[in-house]
Amino acid sequence: MDEKLKKALADIVGKENVTDATIDLVSYSSDFSEHEHRPEGAIWPTTTEQVSRIMQLAHKERIPVTPRGAGTGATGMALPKVGGLVMDLVRMNRILDIRIEDRLAIVQPGVVYADLQRALEPQGFFFPPDPASGKVSTLGGNVATNAGGLKGAKYGTTRDYVLGLELVLPDGRITRTGSRCMKSASGYELTRLFVGSEGTLGIATEITLKINPRPLASSTGLAAFGKQGDAGDAVSEIMHSGIIPSVCEFLDRHIITILIERAGLDLPRCDAMILVETDGYTQGEADFQMEKIIAVFKNHHAQEIKKASTADEAEALWQGRKSLGSVILGLPFDCLVEDITVPMSKLTDLLEGIEEISAKYGIEIMNLGHAGDGNLHPHFLYNEADEAQAARVQKAVADVFALACDLGGTLTGEHGIGLSKAPFMGLEHDPVALDLMWSFKRLLDPHNILNPGKMGFP
Amino acid sequence: MDEKLKKALADIVGKENVTDATIDLVSYSSDFSEHEHRPEGAIWPTTTEQVSRIMQLAHKERIPVTPRGAGTGATGMALPKVGGLVMDLVRMNRILDIRIEDRLAIVQPGVVYADLQRALEPQGFFFPPDPASGKVSTLGGNVATNAGGLKGAKYGTTRDYVLGLELVLPDGRITRTGSRCMKSASGYELTRLFVGSEGTLGIATEITLKINPRPLASSTGLAAFGKQGDAGDAVSEIMHSGIIPSVCEFLDRHIITILIERAGLDLPRCDAMILVETDGYTQGEADFQMEKIIAVFKNHHAQEIKKASTADEAEALWQGRKSLGSVILGLPFDCLVEDITVPMSKLTDLLEGIEEISAKYGIEIMNLGHAGDGNLHPHFLYNEADEAQAARVQKAVADVFALACDLGGTLTGEHGIGLSKAPFMGLEHDPVALDLMWSFKRLLDPHNILNPGKMGFP
Repeated sequence: MDEKLKKALADIVGKENVTDATIDLVSYSSDFSEHEHRPEGAIWPTTTEQVSRIMQLAHKERIPVTPRGAGTGATGMALPKVGGLVMDLVRMNRILDIRIEDRLAIVQPGVVYADLQRALEPQGFFFPPDPASGKVSTLGGNVATNAGGLKGAKYGTTRDYVLGLELVLPDGRITRTGSRCMKSASGYELTRLFVGSEGTLGIATEITLKINPRPLASSTGLAAFGKQGDAGDAVSEIMHSGIIPSVCEFLDRHIITILIERAGLDLPRCDAMILVETDGYTQGEADFQMEKIIAVFKNHHAQEIKKASTADEAEALWQGRKSLGSVILGLPFDCLVEDITVPMSKLTDLLEGIEEISAKYGIEIMNLGHAGDGNLHPHFLYNEADEAQAARVQKAVADVFALACDLGGTLTGEHGIGLSKAPFMGLEHDPVALDLMWSFKRLLDPHNILNPGKMGFP
Repeated sequence: MDEKLKKALADIVGKENVTDATIDLVSYSSDFSEHEHRPEGAIWPTTTEQVSRIMQLAHKERIPVTPRGAGTGATGMALPKVGGLVMDLVRMNRILDIRIEDRLAIVQPGVVYADLQRALEPQGFFFPPDPASGKVSTLGGNVATNAGGLKGAKYGTTRDYVLGLELVLPDGRITRTGSRCMKSASGYELTRLFVGSEGTLGIATEITLKINPRPLASSTGLAAFGKQGDAGDAVSEIMHSGIIPSVCEFLDRHIITILIERAGLDLPRCDAMILVETDGYTQGEADFQMEKIIAVFKNHHAQEIKKASTADEAEALWQGRKSLGSVILGLPFDCLVEDITVPMSKLTDLLEGIEEISAKYGIEIMNLGHAGDGNLHPHFLYNEADEAQAARVQKAVADVFALACDLGGTLTGEHGIGLSKAPFMGLEHDPVALDLMWSFKRLLDPHNILNPGKMGFP
């Protein structure tokens, strides 16, 4: 890094909080995606004022700045595409306030999702989005990505819970959006525009979240289907059954086979499996919903149905889904995870289309997903060293994106656009919508210094 | 209206769908607010293409256009502040699709809220926001205002349910935002920026709404308090009790007195009353929550607690709240209804502050509101013909706004800014946030032709 710049940054955050040591730059070059981009420096601010002064300097000197949380993003959104600085926000990690009577938690962006959950638990409350990365990912990253999770069908995603933000804009100005009230109809809704903007419009330095009382009871069930189509139809019919499961996970036969063969789990060999959870304040409420779901499973020719009667039995049913991450990491091939979403009734069409794409390119694709909100995670298995195969994976991924959009779906349910899906924005959004997005970016960040190169902007 | 313009508009929508007849202009001069502004003409488009062509013409000829639904807005947002055209969207009133398996309803903006509700009911679904004006107000108006209602505490407001929009921008361009999926993390969230923008950024010509399965059971209860502070404390503690009531209405002693004396209702004479409803799929779930709430009422010295055991008893408890609108309309004075929201724990402070303001200006202020989400509707009683008194009301209203903002609240929970609260935007939003809002407006509507003069913009 240029010595003058390094000095100027050290003046803001202290010498010990700015680095251009190779080891730091290398570790900031990657995240949970397949991309790699090395920054010229990294900086750890601890206050809003420091973030503001850094952005004032960056704005004046035209230095690209890429904000970063825990680096668990799956699309490269925290990687410095064009170099410049990585701004690591994990040291701004204080839970500032929990106000149960106002249903609010006020946090800094570096607070880890699970730490907030732990702080809320003794009070009987929780923050519902439940991203799979929650043990390590930061709330700032969750906000930037609009992170979702297993409970999206019933509880929505991060955006549904962000009431207000303190933001530093690309030119260093500080502002507050939204409020600490449960509802407001005052002026333009800036808060939710910034949520999911992937750190391209501003840096959230304080986040006000709505929290929920935790349900006291739940019920878990599992159904194995001989035909994948039956499972897809069952998901559609669950929607008709007048209840909303808190979790509704879909696993295809590839995943099930891997769980049986590699993790040694005692699962029925079948074409597809659905794992559901219902919840409520009373056991009767959770059971009532589970009965509705089990009736749907029976209607759709489930070959085996299990219902947990105890917490241990529920845990056993969950074991497969929960061990998936580590099982997949242990597979002797590379695995690219995608994240499309379609209207729930299109799930069967999507799965059939993916099967065709798999055959067309000779690439194995395993599917699991949050069927309750139509969010599917196809896993593309390949060998990265085999360039021809890797190239076929890229084509298969592009076909899957096109298929999802053709079915009225979206490129991403919860992982964001980042670098990975940037080239595909035109598949989903019309030119006027893209022009609006890009106009907002230009308006707020005329020099294109805040997380440039993401979301498909020029 | 200028004959050339009238001809150009008739070419777009047909002669019978454009008017400058005095009787039409007079009826479009007012809404549910105290404001009055007469347009030069009114137009009834029936297709998106017509809306687009009207806006292209308006953009080119710099003609102000004010979109309008049923005219039930309480802040004047559908009134043509600077003249020009009123665009009445009530003839675009088709429910285009209801897709239960995808939890979606797709509607045109002129569909009346209650008509959608009626269409969903046989399928066991509902659209939760429940605005008090729902029998007449249009979904386009609900979207423009981000309308809320009695069930906000548990179910949120309109914005929480809008997944996608077809929009005509101020220059006539047509775009689609959002998607028909339950969730998305793709690009900037334009949809929810347009929701609540009061028709100043674009005209929604098609609305995709998330719908919910209807709860099958409910429980209703009522508590009378000898001290208003006890009622406020009870609301705070309900938040701690680990459940969320579907309705939690607050009524103060002025309202109660009026209901007893003018509507002849059999209510306990008391300082404050709370009316609650809980719901669920099972009666046990609704009852479990009601028991928690009743325990809170007892803890806070409720002098009388009633719980409905039958639907008729519940209806009797609701009678007071439901008849309020017509009782207030029948009062022998004018009544200005406000709509502030504070964090729930500040409700008592807010009520005490309003009492002081009432005494300071010698203006009677009655309070009722959706306590479960901190939304209070102070009713200012006065005689419009008494200019000195009317002027004092204006000052009292301004003081109430300042008080709400001081308590960390917002100017409006569900009625919007419109003309009424335009001068007060600076009380709530900082200059940077206001600058952002105004920049967005300028970006999309450089000639300031779409609903100009609202939201406090220059």
